[in-house]
Amino acid sequence: MAKKIGVVLSGCGVFDGAEIHESVLTLLSLEKRGARVVCMAPNVDQHHVINHLTGKEMPEKRNVLVESARIARGEIEDIATVTANDLDAVVFPGGFGAAKNLCTFAFDGPNATVHPEVERLLKEMFAARKPIGLVCIAPALGARVLGENGIEVTIGNDADTAAGINKTGARHVNCAVTETHEDPARKIISTPAYMLGRNIAEVGTGIDKLVDTLLEWA
Amino acid sequence: MAKKIGVVLSGCGVFDGAEIHESVLTLLSLEKRGARVVCMAPNVDQHHVINHLTGKEMPEKRNVLVESARIARGEIEDIATVTANDLDAVVFPGGFGAAKNLCTFAFDGPNATVHPEVERLLKEMFAARKPIGLVCIAPALGARVLGENGIEVTIGNDADTAAGINKTGARHVNCAVTETHEDPARKIISTPAYMLGRNIAEVGTGIDKLVDTLLEWA
Repeated sequence: MAKKIGVVLSGCGVFDGAEIHESVLTLLSLEKRGARVVCMAPNVDQHHVINHLTGKEMPEKRNVLVESARIARGEIEDIATVTANDLDAVVFPGGFGAAKNLCTFAFDGPNATVHPEVERLLKEMFAARKPIGLVCIAPALGARVLGENGIEVTIGNDADTAAGINKTGARHVNCAVTETHEDPARKIISTPAYMLGRNIAEVGTGIDKLVDTLLEWA
Repeated sequence: MAKKIGVVLSGCGVFDGAEIHESVLTLLSLEKRGARVVCMAPNVDQHHVINHLTGKEMPEKRNVLVESARIARGEIEDIATVTANDLDAVVFPGGFGAAKNLCTFAFDGPNATVHPEVERLLKEMFAARKPIGLVCIAPALGARVLGENGIEVTIGNDADTAAGINKTGARHVNCAVTETHEDPARKIISTPAYMLGRNIAEVGTGIDKLVDTLLEWA
């Protein structure tokens, strides 16, 4: 039977939401390997809206679930309605949304607050030792919630972000964009993606490897 | 030297803009094959904004170029600044944006009006016999502009859309989602993508084939 894999989105666009390439490549990778995908996002306003042409903030409000639905072509759940019982594994694509909307790591580093439903699902998945895949900056979110368990993750090699991750109790390990770092005992796997990636093809290579291992573990 | 391939976006989201999966898979396919991508979009308001969770119209205005920049991670040009001299080939991903923002085919069928810069670039590319790739519903746009030249295209097998395309002078040919229809004399290639696709993997198969042939021709 097909494995059910959650994909937690955080909006739609690298600067204020889910990184679109990472999200789509995760969906592609899962589909190619026969998984059944459950997209989800929190029903909450985005921290802000960034004009992706100019990089400037726009005087708008957008909802994380509604914007994430663009990536999911409308097939998406409110994360509040999903539990670890519904899933065999979960993946968090990156983009600033993971560090601005799912938690506040972009502003508060290791003291970030986390959306309560995101925190709940991460803790449930970890308690059940169901695999958790963390892409790009999402390992910072994983570290904030699960760092006290000494999980190992990678965001590539950015020293400041790595230091922030280490302060949560997690351990950061440097890693190339086309590779993953695995913490098999805790079933956590991460890949740097656009934290390091210079183009979509190398980002895709890392995500394919992450999904391969995630499904092996699931 | 790397071939320069234009990718014309029409917003960010299947119901009111560029289909995100098709756009990202086109970028992935081009990058994997060593092409240099030039993303572009018209600087014009979207026809409307659709809530992708509910399918309902939202009381908002969004700009096609600004929203397309989300898919392009900010690396995007105003189509008004790009000519056929700058490109070796061009691809139009689908999504309702191609039929609502780049032209009005979704509302006016074969009598659609076309954004003037989109029409100009299509005519320039065709006059230079530089390859044109049309994905999903984008063949309807191509037919509206170039149908008088008797181009052959596919949008899959939707009878009403095919009839509309045939009224422009173009000829519609049925095609499976994992295949392409080629008009080699006119260097036009199309694939049905989400006009027929049941999942992202089969859409990707068709897009990969389209990009393979487009780059051979270029």
